[in-house]
Amino acid sequence: MSGGVDSMVLLDLLQNSIFSLSVAHANFQLRSIESDADEDFVKNKCLQKQIPFYGKRFDILTHAKMNKCSVQMSARTLRYNWFYHLGKNLHCDCIVLGHNLNDEIETFFLNLSRGTGLKGLLGIPKKVGPILRPLLPFTREQIMLYARSRNLHWREDSSNKESKYFRNVIRHRVVPVLFKVFPNFYQNFSHTLYHLNQYYSLSEQAVQISRIQITVMKKIDPFLWEINTEVLKRFHPINGYLFRLFSPYGFKNLPDLKRLLQAQPGKQLFSKSYRLVSGKNRWLLRQKRI
Amino acid sequence: MSGGVDSMVLLDLLQNSIFSLSVAHANFQLRSIESDADEDFVKNKCLQKQIPFYGKRFDILTHAKMNKCSVQMSARTLRYNWFYHLGKNLHCDCIVLGHNLNDEIETFFLNLSRGTGLKGLLGIPKKVGPILRPLLPFTREQIMLYARSRNLHWREDSSNKESKYFRNVIRHRVVPVLFKVFPNFYQNFSHTLYHLNQYYSLSEQAVQISRIQITVMKKIDPFLWEINTEVLKRFHPINGYLFRLFSPYGFKNLPDLKRLLQAQPGKQLFSKSYRLVSGKNRWLLRQKRI
Repeated sequence: MSGGVDSMVLLDLLQNSIFSLSVAHANFQLRSIESDADEDFVKNKCLQKQIPFYGKRFDILTHAKMNKCSVQMSARTLRYNWFYHLGKNLHCDCIVLGHNLNDEIETFFLNLSRGTGLKGLLGIPKKVGPILRPLLPFTREQIMLYARSRNLHWREDSSNKESKYFRNVIRHRVVPVLFKVFPNFYQNFSHTLYHLNQYYSLSEQAVQISRIQITVMKKIDPFLWEINTEVLKRFHPINGYLFRLFSPYGFKNLPDLKRLLQAQPGKQLFSKSYRLVSGKNRWLLRQKRI
Repeated sequence: MSGGVDSMVLLDLLQNSIFSLSVAHANFQLRSIESDADEDFVKNKCLQKQIPFYGKRFDILTHAKMNKCSVQMSARTLRYNWFYHLGKNLHCDCIVLGHNLNDEIETFFLNLSRGTGLKGLLGIPKKVGPILRPLLPFTREQIMLYARSRNLHWREDSSNKESKYFRNVIRHRVVPVLFKVFPNFYQNFSHTLYHLNQYYSLSEQAVQISRIQITVMKKIDPFLWEINTEVLKRFHPINGYLFRLFSPYGFKNLPDLKRLLQAQPGKQLFSKSYRLVSGKNRWLLRQKRI
């Protein structure tokens, strides 16, 4: 729980349910006094409502620097790891998060603008492992309406109001324009997202079938596969197949894979844990020994 | 050729190529004097450059009313039909159109906001039958730059400057915002579109394979197919499969198809040209006799 409107609505809804609750609050200490005030706010709410509260402070800047990733990515990693860990220790059945339809739309536009490929356009999953996001079908406006009708209190994240982050540009300057011109925007967007996911599943199956077709045999060595490149070469679109078949093994560079497809026997490609060796009409995919 | 900057750039490029050209201009008479001035502009350019000019006037409002479709849809249908017809009569090898990357982006956002499904997000094809769109990889800014560097003249469509149409809202209020925040927006967008098309092709193959799996036999009657619904029912995601397998025959209503999957033998669904009859673990798909 951040203390924002989504999390307060979620708490209000779950409180009236049959589930027994614990609240976790991650304090990233990025907005100094404000961050601490958020923590106090959530803590006090929990005290009032007699719900167990778990707070944790993270030194996110050090983590980001050490792992050479963005502050946002660090926050994400640290938060989710802690949620999993805490959920396990407390024997929770699930971890419930307050993401809504607007978060999903913003993520879509962010990933579209950053060019992260199709997977980034599939939306935020409703359920992954123990994580549930029951507010995902609702817009921020609907959640706000509920919060007001129930007289809930929440804290505004000051960074939300500034157009400082990319996400906020999309939130304040792109989505409202589209919604104004297309009153069914939210509904239509959900519809598109649903279809994208259906197509993704279908394409996943084409890849599975093709994987069976090209894998000649799994040798006695359980870490060695033989791939029939004569069959592989006939797949169309070859780029789509090469990427989807070999990126799970860490081979994500298409030009490299395409060169290997034309290479003399003996040429090799290496990923972190695998080796791909070209032979006559064959590739050998071998897991590296640890 | 509309007389706009895209078409003038296209003409300039093609003029310096080895191809022999004819120019077609559709006058939709929607902006009265302005429409006629566009036609005169293009006609005079062609006279100057000694390129055969073909102009045609369309009564688009009547066509839209009679066919119960939007003015834009009417314009599209009438224009393309005439292009095909003219191209055939003149024995042209191809019909070249001036669409650019911005048109593609705008179409993507329009279709996303309208909820037209994945096909509407796949972009404008570079080549369909005789139609080619060689300017598709270039942005409007790049085309403008070329036009200025070559001292070309063109006509501005006054309706482009107003935020009157949905497309113009996206053109003037959405794309510039995204481009400002994500300087690689165009490149990243193209990248995403490429991936969407790859996924679409892959999913198309999963559907083809499944079609073979469920089609028990093509009976002696060439207009009758038998479908194994026991196998069909096992496909996942069933909605994706049902839609992709049966929409080509005009069955686009998913709830209807799902009901038929559970129905007693003898239940039927009708589309414009096909009939789908449920039997025991079977469907019969029959083309209607004309």
